[in-house]
Amino acid sequence: MKLDNIRHSLVNILAAAVKELFPRVKFGAGLAIEDGFYYDFDNLKISDKDLPKIEKKMKELIKKDIKPGSFKLTKLAGAYWKGDEKNPMLTRIYGVAFNTKKELDQYLKTQEEAEKRDHRKLGQKLELFSINEEIGAGLPLWHGKGTILRHIIEDYLYKELTSQGYEWLTTPHIGKLSLWKTSGHWDFYRENIYSPIKIEQEEYLLKPMNCPFHIKVYQSKIRSYKDLPIKFAELGTVYRYEKSGVLHGLTRVRGFTQDDAHIFCTPDQLDKELFSMLKYGLKILKTFGFKNYEIYLSTRPKKYMGTLKMWRQATDSLKYACEKLKLKYELDPEGGVFYGPKIDIKIKDSIGRPWQCSTFQIDFNLPKAFNISYIDEKGKKKEPIMIHRALLGSLERFIGVLLEHYEGALPVWLSPIQAWIIPITSRHEKYANEIKKKLSSFRTELKNENETVSKKIRQGEIQKVPYLLVIGDKEMKTKTVRVRERGKGDIGEMKIDKFIDKIWHSYPNLRKN
Amino acid sequence: MKLDNIRHSLVNILAAAVKELFPRVKFGAGLAIEDGFYYDFDNLKISDKDLPKIEKKMKELIKKDIKPGSFKLTKLAGAYWKGDEKNPMLTRIYGVAFNTKKELDQYLKTQEEAEKRDHRKLGQKLELFSINEEIGAGLPLWHGKGTILRHIIEDYLYKELTSQGYEWLTTPHIGKLSLWKTSGHWDFYRENIYSPIKIEQEEYLLKPMNCPFHIKVYQSKIRSYKDLPIKFAELGTVYRYEKSGVLHGLTRVRGFTQDDAHIFCTPDQLDKELFSMLKYGLKILKTFGFKNYEIYLSTRPKKYMGTLKMWRQATDSLKYACEKLKLKYELDPEGGVFYGPKIDIKIKDSIGRPWQCSTFQIDFNLPKAFNISYIDEKGKKKEPIMIHRALLGSLERFIGVLLEHYEGALPVWLSPIQAWIIPITSRHEKYANEIKKKLSSFRTELKNENETVSKKIRQGEIQKVPYLLVIGDKEMKTKTVRVRERGKGDIGEMKIDKFIDKIWHSYPNLRKN
Repeated sequence: MKLDNIRHSLVNILAAAVKELFPRVKFGAGLAIEDGFYYDFDNLKISDKDLPKIEKKMKELIKKDIKPGSFKLTKLAGAYWKGDEKNPMLTRIYGVAFNTKKELDQYLKTQEEAEKRDHRKLGQKLELFSINEEIGAGLPLWHGKGTILRHIIEDYLYKELTSQGYEWLTTPHIGKLSLWKTSGHWDFYRENIYSPIKIEQEEYLLKPMNCPFHIKVYQSKIRSYKDLPIKFAELGTVYRYEKSGVLHGLTRVRGFTQDDAHIFCTPDQLDKELFSMLKYGLKILKTFGFKNYEIYLSTRPKKYMGTLKMWRQATDSLKYACEKLKLKYELDPEGGVFYGPKIDIKIKDSIGRPWQCSTFQIDFNLPKAFNISYIDEKGKKKEPIMIHRALLGSLERFIGVLLEHYEGALPVWLSPIQAWIIPITSRHEKYANEIKKKLSSFRTELKNENETVSKKIRQGEIQKVPYLLVIGDKEMKTKTVRVRERGKGDIGEMKIDKFIDKIWHSYPNLRKN
Repeated sequence: MKLDNIRHSLVNILAAAVKELFPRVKFGAGLAIEDGFYYDFDNLKISDKDLPKIEKKMKELIKKDIKPGSFKLTKLAGAYWKGDEKNPMLTRIYGVAFNTKKELDQYLKTQEEAEKRDHRKLGQKLELFSINEEIGAGLPLWHGKGTILRHIIEDYLYKELTSQGYEWLTTPHIGKLSLWKTSGHWDFYRENIYSPIKIEQEEYLLKPMNCPFHIKVYQSKIRSYKDLPIKFAELGTVYRYEKSGVLHGLTRVRGFTQDDAHIFCTPDQLDKELFSMLKYGLKILKTFGFKNYEIYLSTRPKKYMGTLKMWRQATDSLKYACEKLKLKYELDPEGGVFYGPKIDIKIKDSIGRPWQCSTFQIDFNLPKAFNISYIDEKGKKKEPIMIHRALLGSLERFIGVLLEHYEGALPVWLSPIQAWIIPITSRHEKYANEIKKKLSSFRTELKNENETVSKKIRQGEIQKVPYLLVIGDKEMKTKTVRVRERGKGDIGEMKIDKFIDKIWHSYPNLRKN
């Protein structure tokens, strides 16, 4: 029996079981869905505690001669009849079903694991961000610690990309609508663009992407082949419409900060640029702890812009970059966008879930649409090749993924607060302050509130602070700190210099300037 | 004769002089304006070269027995009849007039000086930013070097305010309209707010200010008196409508990044907070090179919120802060906003012009409107005092002022590019690269283009690069660099370590972490 059929049959078995146990129930409708099934009932007043009883009844109803797979009823929810809020609210019972008990157990374990890692809960617990309906759905507010985390990542990217010859730009969040008419986005992408704002008879858009602004900076002077490649980067906050139903924490939002870049190069430079972009991109992902990827190379679709020759060269360049870096990739034949071929990278987190992050897209359309050019060796106007690329994708989404990947226990260099200094009594505060001063290169907090040490340690563990430094008489006398390391517990006393070495040692090899 | 009357009489004398020289001219209208006067003529085809002739004729017409002041015709412009673009274009002649020749000369000299310092021209010459009509008026695009400058300032503020206990927030650029209805801005400030964007039946605004977002972060948990003062800072980009006619470079724009902060404190903490805010604010302004200020303290207006007692305490706290810091301030009686008293600081630039930058405003309104609270020692709900403060005002405006203040020759620590390394021939390039490496803590460029050294030096001077390091045989042999310092010219050879010391020495005392 196919899994889909199993789930379908369980819809009916669920309905029958409930009817038998609660004869006054009225049937709504049921459906097989991803991972399982559900059924809506009217006139049913039950709680989670009733689910095992219903499960048991379902098993009784299942005939011995069919093998309906392993299933479990998972939760209750309210649901409007036909999904319309004007209709009465029914009771929905959800279940999951798989071919074998093993698959079901695996699924439930993964669900449990995923729930522990839910970045929305972690974000609240670690006081990183909040989403407030009074501000608007899909518009996160970054609190103090969340902004520190953003800042660490921004600073890292700034130094890394500057060293790679990128120029950073800062562009506004609104611009004339005509820019996106020229780019084609207004025609092809309108359902994701917010309605225009009128300023003195002219329509402006909240920017859904940064490209037109970067192109205008490129066009602000005459560019020679000697200036190419020109690489513009921006942490640009863009706004795109998503239905409220699909919004999800930081990973699906309405406003997000892309780590965006646009590279303008000659056809001759394409191989080298793509190779080095991909190489440095992977280096950066690795610094954050992501070492496994799914890489997709999407080729020419049926409808396309540019010449066959352009597509062939660009696709070959993408392949060349992957192969030179010995990367396994999957071809997605005809999966490219109409304006050019691309590479997408999904990073795999610590429990194997893939997350779409990086993208490298060659664009034959915008250089034409905006008529951009450079002067070649012979003094002739030529059209540059343009590459769009994002490494992390967006800060919001990437931080969401980081939290799920590390279950909130961020590496030391990314932790908003790296150590708590906990004096045992008030007479240890002076020494604790000296320690804080010595740790001034790091992000530390002095916990001198009037609470027990054990309560502070517990709080520090909940907050996933990498190091808790307890300071009492002994530590004062021996000029040490007692170190509790996250995940390891008490690792003993340590001279402060040794502890400082220990923190630096845990850092990836970051650029200091 | 009063200056205004002088200018009025010159309007008529100008008209008479032109009529005498060009009898076919038709009179439009004239007006006395700030600094001088103008007159519009029809049927007048003249050029700038005709202005001295007209000036001469005016002097002849001036009767000996009146003393009409010293004047000068300054420029020609086109102007629509009655200012309406549907009407024909007239020729406008502008003049300036003062009581004495000395005052006129002083004015003309200041004008000339101001023109050299015009940040719009400097911004283009130094490739810092551009304003592009295709993007939209009042919406600057920050190029590579401009973004470096912004980044230096942002980084400086980030470290400085973090050390002062500020928490940095990051909030979206749109939010529900209802927030600004609650705050009162929608009623009192609507002409500066852009029209709402509709998302799923709900109206959103492009944010004109950050306050409601910061308040929502404050309200995201219960605050105790022990947590206060809470100080939130954000480099928040806000958008406000200005008529296109008043837009001016970076100093009057439609989108700008405020160095915004909101302080929530108990009444007891107000003195200390205002004092330290003002003290550190002036320290920061001084680091940027501004040492002279005009300080205004605005007191309770006729219409006000809050109690007399609140106003008295708050105004006293502001006075106390100024007096403890031995600051001269002017009272602006009844000049406060309805929600509380404030201090404004105008910084004076190197030619004595005042620029409004910092503001410290006490707010009795928003805590009430949003019903924010903290729990006091007795477990009771209390209303905190809220302070809005901006130090630089906005990054855009402040950078405009910096450029005018320094005539583009920014201090070394603020210069986007601090040194050019200029190898005399290609055989000096290897050593030049070694030098570049040794200077990796600084922002340098290797100028190895195929151009003469003298041309590169000229370009470097135009770009106001603080140091030009020329490298030839002699420097290679003696392991030195030949240093040209901005404004000083060639200051001789120098070991690289000595040069590095020299650069560090020119830095203000910046926080390293």
